[in-house]
Amino acid sequence: MQQTVPAVRKLRIGCEFNHVAQSPTPAAFLIRPASDTAIVRELWTTDPVMELGRYTDLYGNEIRRVMLPAGESLVSYYGIADVPDAVDEADPSAPALRAEDLPSDVLVYTLPSRYCQSDMLIDDAWRLFGSHERNYELVVAIQDWVWNHLEYRTGSTGSLWTAKDSFDNGYGVCRDFAHLMVSLCRAVTIPARYCYGYLPDMDVPPLPTAMDFHAWVEVYLGDRWWTFDPRHNARRKGHVPIGRGRDATDLAMVTSWGVPWLRRLTVWADEEFDEPWPPVDVSMAARDPFKD
Amino acid sequence: MQQTVPAVRKLRIGCEFNHVAQSPTPAAFLIRPASDTAIVRELWTTDPVMELGRYTDLYGNEIRRVMLPAGESLVSYYGIADVPDAVDEADPSAPALRAEDLPSDVLVYTLPSRYCQSDMLIDDAWRLFGSHERNYELVVAIQDWVWNHLEYRTGSTGSLWTAKDSFDNGYGVCRDFAHLMVSLCRAVTIPARYCYGYLPDMDVPPLPTAMDFHAWVEVYLGDRWWTFDPRHNARRKGHVPIGRGRDATDLAMVTSWGVPWLRRLTVWADEEFDEPWPPVDVSMAARDPFKD
Amino acid sequence: MQQTVPAVRKLRIGCEFNHVAQSPTPAAFLIRPASDTAIVRELWTTDPVMELGRYTDLYGNEIRRVMLPAGESLVSYYGIADVPDAVDEADPSAPALRAEDLPSDVLVYTLPSRYCQSDMLIDDAWRLFGSHERNYELVVAIQDWVWNHLEYRTGSTGSLWTAKDSFDNGYGVCRDFAHLMVSLCRAVTIPARYCYGYLPDMDVPPLPTAMDFHAWVEVYLGDRWWTFDPRHNARRKGHVPIGRGRDATDLAMVTSWGVPWLRRLTVWADEEFDEPWPPVDVSMAARDPFKD
Amino acid sequence: MQQTVPAVRKLRIGCEFNHVAQSPTPAAFLIRPASDTAIVRELWTTDPVMELGRYTDLYGNEIRRVMLPAGESLVSYYGIADVPDAVDEADPSAPALRAEDLPSDVLVYTLPSRYCQSDMLIDDAWRLFGSHERNYELVVAIQDWVWNHLEYRTGSTGSLWTAKDSFDNGYGVCRDFAHLMVSLCRAVTIPARYCYGYLPDMDVPPLPTAMDFHAWVEVYLGDRWWTFDPRHNARRKGHVPIGRGRDATDLAMVTSWGVPWLRRLTVWADEEFDEPWPPVDVSMAARDPFKD
Repeated sequence: MQQTVPAVRKLRIGCEFNHVAQSPTPAAFLIRPASDTAIVRELWTTDPVMELGRYTDLYGNEIRRVMLPAGESLVSYYGIADVPDAVDEADPSAPALRAEDLPSDVLVYTLPSRYCQSDMLIDDAWRLFGSHERNYELVVAIQDWVWNHLEYRTGSTGSLWTAKDSFDNGYGVCRDFAHLMVSLCRAVTIPARYCYGYLPDMDVPPLPTAMDFHAWVEVYLGDRWWTFDPRHNARRKGHVPIGRGRDATDLAMVTSWGVPWLRRLTVWADEEFDEPWPPVDVSMAARDPFKD
Repeated sequence: MQQTVPAVRKLRIGCEFNHVAQSPTPAAFLIRPASDTAIVRELWTTDPVMELGRYTDLYGNEIRRVMLPAGESLVSYYGIADVPDAVDEADPSAPALRAEDLPSDVLVYTLPSRYCQSDMLIDDAWRLFGSHERNYELVVAIQDWVWNHLEYRTGSTGSLWTAKDSFDNGYGVCRDFAHLMVSLCRAVTIPARYCYGYLPDMDVPPLPTAMDFHAWVEVYLGDRWWTFDPRHNARRKGHVPIGRGRDATDLAMVTSWGVPWLRRLTVWADEEFDEPWPPVDVSMAARDPFKD
Repeated sequence: MQQTVPAVRKLRIGCEFNHVAQSPTPAAFLIRPASDTAIVRELWTTDPVMELGRYTDLYGNEIRRVMLPAGESLVSYYGIADVPDAVDEADPSAPALRAEDLPSDVLVYTLPSRYCQSDMLIDDAWRLFGSHERNYELVVAIQDWVWNHLEYRTGSTGSLWTAKDSFDNGYGVCRDFAHLMVSLCRAVTIPARYCYGYLPDMDVPPLPTAMDFHAWVEVYLGDRWWTFDPRHNARRKGHVPIGRGRDATDLAMVTSWGVPWLRRLTVWADEEFDEPWPPVDVSMAARDPFKD
Repeated sequence: MQQTVPAVRKLRIGCEFNHVAQSPTPAAFLIRPASDTAIVRELWTTDPVMELGRYTDLYGNEIRRVMLPAGESLVSYYGIADVPDAVDEADPSAPALRAEDLPSDVLVYTLPSRYCQSDMLIDDAWRLFGSHERNYELVVAIQDWVWNHLEYRTGSTGSLWTAKDSFDNGYGVCRDFAHLMVSLCRAVTIPARYCYGYLPDMDVPPLPTAMDFHAWVEVYLGDRWWTFDPRHNARRKGHVPIGRGRDATDLAMVTSWGVPWLRRLTVWADEEFDEPWPPVDVSMAARDPFKD
């Protein structure tokens, strides 16, 4: 029962939202890595001081509810996560299960959703992929097709843009790549969910875009979920999932009930950093633990 | 602490699905009353004998998974439910809460979904209802507007028809009345969910349509969910909820992964019936409970 | 991906509680097979008619809440379950995991509970079993030890009798066999839970006791729970689990808040029976499904 | 719908565990305030760096799983919580519900558990309290009785000491006060749960004991849980709950599967402190949010 422990690398991850609101505005943040990512240090902080409520959504994501004050405000999360020092796992032989063999909690990910109208893409999906053997390689083929079909255009799409729009128009951002891939998988009855989180440039040249959150896809094959990244069309190191769900409706980094201006969003995901980070001095007069 | 027990009436409810499938087809049924309805007797039966698996979905609905065999099959549920002998409750003074005051598990019902694109109806909703005081009466006004705006046309709409389609075209079935009302409520940040179940003709003339499942709406005001029925635009006796969720995507009576033919669906919801019902003879040679 | 479908046999299971109460008494029943057992037909009935409420407990068991009326009453459940035509599975090589490798939802089953004071048996457990390799065979050894240590004495123990009492006194009923085995497993940090349900005499001579519910044990080894039956000290066919949890505190067939007299309890679990069972005539004038 | 926002005060809370282990030892910490306490800033840190896993237990408490390394280690949590500037709420008219009126998720708190053998105290409880009207004042009477019956003796009781032991012997620590009060409430069918957390000396003289976690009780009356503190026998300001459950079995600050030495535990809960606390310098070269 000797287990091989995979090598891990430490990653500095986190983000800071700088909002400006006309009046107090309720908001919900989903910015902390999901519970299957090990975190070795973390700090939540706000300026001015705001109460951070907590709840778990339908999909198991941990949400922080906040009342943004009128004027400027900061909500920040700093963490250090342990991530595998390896690209996303793959198993070309993993089969796409028949619906009757899927676990019950996976079934919902075969259904259409707001941005992923798989029900509108069934004919196209079966035409394109219906003859392929139903396994991991089929999902690779779908990812490859999405990557070839869509042109990446920074800032090109808005909050009403759906997978069907991307399919019809041939462009989008990483969110749209993910939505279209999710939709095509579901259209051929393969469970797929939308995922977003942090992604550093580990061992690859940085993308020519400013650091931001990144969106990708998880697909259920064999007995587990597998990570796919249609915007890169490659297995990558360092995907740190924050939220998973049916699509971006449920999984905004920040959902606000009102219209605060997001003046600036800073996101970081780096391998190189000085420790301790954040640079916290936790020494207290009353303690000196290793020297008593 | 004397509690007034509301008068109840017994209702025979249930349904039978008669499918014809080319090959074995997995399906999931949601046909039993929700757990807040008291059931005094119930029978599940299948013909031919099929295994009935069980699970609870994201919203707490209890689903039965079945493998429909090739050829004809029956899946039946018979129940007797206790329902209040009163129309749906109302409280004109119940307020629409501000988002920051909503319970966390209610927030998801302010977001758009596959059939209820509240995000596409925000401008219209605020134009129509933005000046109204935010309370129960506002929801009555939305219901009234939906009932006036939509013409009921039996069988007029298909599985891709959304609330936006109903809004633009002005007609639909009860499902569409519900989807549109849900969408308009969410567009003005009032939590609303889609609900369907059984509805008998208690103390009202029967509708000139064959008995079927019925769809309605629940809206969160004050500290609870309230029942609204935009297809009738009236408070009614006898709503027996089966499933609740974001919209009909998640809440089909039957979801099948394949294309079995639903040859016939029989639904019943009656006050008048002979007991015992179903007529079960449960006497066993080995027992005679009251005479030993 | 060809799957072998195990042979199944149909089992008639169910029970009837005949209570006599001085005054209306609230009670909770846990008598339906757990959701991992496929049920092909089932009937709940009461006499006189009582409302059956429904909820799911901490462990996922489905409970029915009932208000027993003053006087005599019957609560009955009739079902037909599909069970594997094979004895309980075993894997002698399945390892006992280290605590750090246990799934999080299993950890609670390493802790003591009301009837299973594993914390009082740690020294004895390590003395008896500490030198054994930590695997399935260790659990077999614990089961064997319990079976040899305890004498089965019908009706010998009451509701305050614990695993420690059984350990000290050397006798008990099936519940006590289960509690002691659970305690010894937990004492050596192997997750174990109490389980009870139906057990027919399939392919074995009937026990010289009247049919009753039966209690056994599930132990977590490798990546799953395994069934053990310390009262029989043998792998058996036909265990149909109803409830699982920490011990019998949480898992009474019936919990009442008051003192109704259980005049008679009838339990059945048989391979031989006439179908349809229960003998329900579900023909309705309005339907003739295969002949229209 | 004008709501009165209660005055709040900021409290510095947190703790640090200093363990010494012979070999790597798995452990689970429950030290962060429960999700109904608003936290405005928080930091988790470990030394040496350890992965902090996360899961939610049966009762909704958030647990951190850690592998303590061989040798010395620190696990620390620093937070600032907003707490009401008022003593625990009370409502002398709140009734003890009949069992049939209790919410389903509350029923488990009427049952005995490892340390709270309410089933062994039923006769005594009814003798002592059976004639009292069943309301909030009855619970006050139980608390008062416990406070008079038990002598507080620091460090007097060990990990096998139960409510029955406290009842019979007349002494204990705050944990034992809580266990006995919980047991007596359950014995008269009033739902009660064990609770522990942080408690500062707000507006009262400090206790003559070093700061530690504190244990108290929550009792379900009317439609909610109420806080009681039998060790102080008084309503207090500043109870910050961390964990709630059936008893201390499930709710250790730290549960370890092994025998690490807890060299020192430091707990803090103070009104007076310098901000920012912990003194984190989160300025990054790349950002200067309010000046761009």
